[in-house]
Amino acid sequence: MDIINWIGTLAGVFTTIAFIPQVAKTWKTRSAGDISLLMFLLFSSGVLLWLIYGVLLQAMPIIVANGITLSLSASILVMKIKDLRAQRRRQLAADQRTL
Amino acid sequence: MDIINWIGTLAGVFTTIAFIPQVAKTWKTRSAGDISLLMFLLFSSGVLLWLIYGVLLQAMPIIVANGITLSLSASILVMKIKDLRAQRRRQLAADQRTL
Repeated sequence: MDIINWIGTLAGVFTTIAFIPQVAKTWKTRSAGDISLLMFLLFSSGVLLWLIYGVLLQAMPIIVANGITLSLSASILVMKIKDLRAQRRRQLAADQRTL
Repeated sequence: MDIINWIGTLAGVFTTIAFIPQVAKTWKTRSAGDISLLMFLLFSSGVLLWLIYGVLLQAMPIIVANGITLSLSASILVMKIKDLRAQRRRQLAADQRTL
């Protein structure tokens, strides 16, 4: 493999594993208030499209990298939605106490 | 442009613009506590490598998409580091009050 392919492979590894510490942090703290819902909605949709693109081209590196990234970014999205729901429940409970 | 190229282009647009709402949110709230520093360090490094890869291949779509993504993801990284520093200053001030 030449130097250009090595750089591309390293780039793919970095942008894929980058999501692991965010999944770990959000899982541990159960807090996602500073994370943008729209970011992870758009990003997960984009990565799903990359995955479809890879399947249509039968390009295994694109399929593998985007399959892993999709599972990580979708996990963050699910935790963000759960956090929003928990926040809404707390708000509702607080509103009922003031009634 | 055939359907496969359209899907790839749409995928690239989605994964690039996804970072705009996160930049906007972090800028507005000045709060980045739930964001993983390591995620944006790894992601920005990976995107920089993609940019170098695109320059070496002289592939304009890779250069443009990753140039935009790098500027957005580096902005989030800078805001996260500023937030960490502000947090440390607040902690130091609180420690001095208790001395």
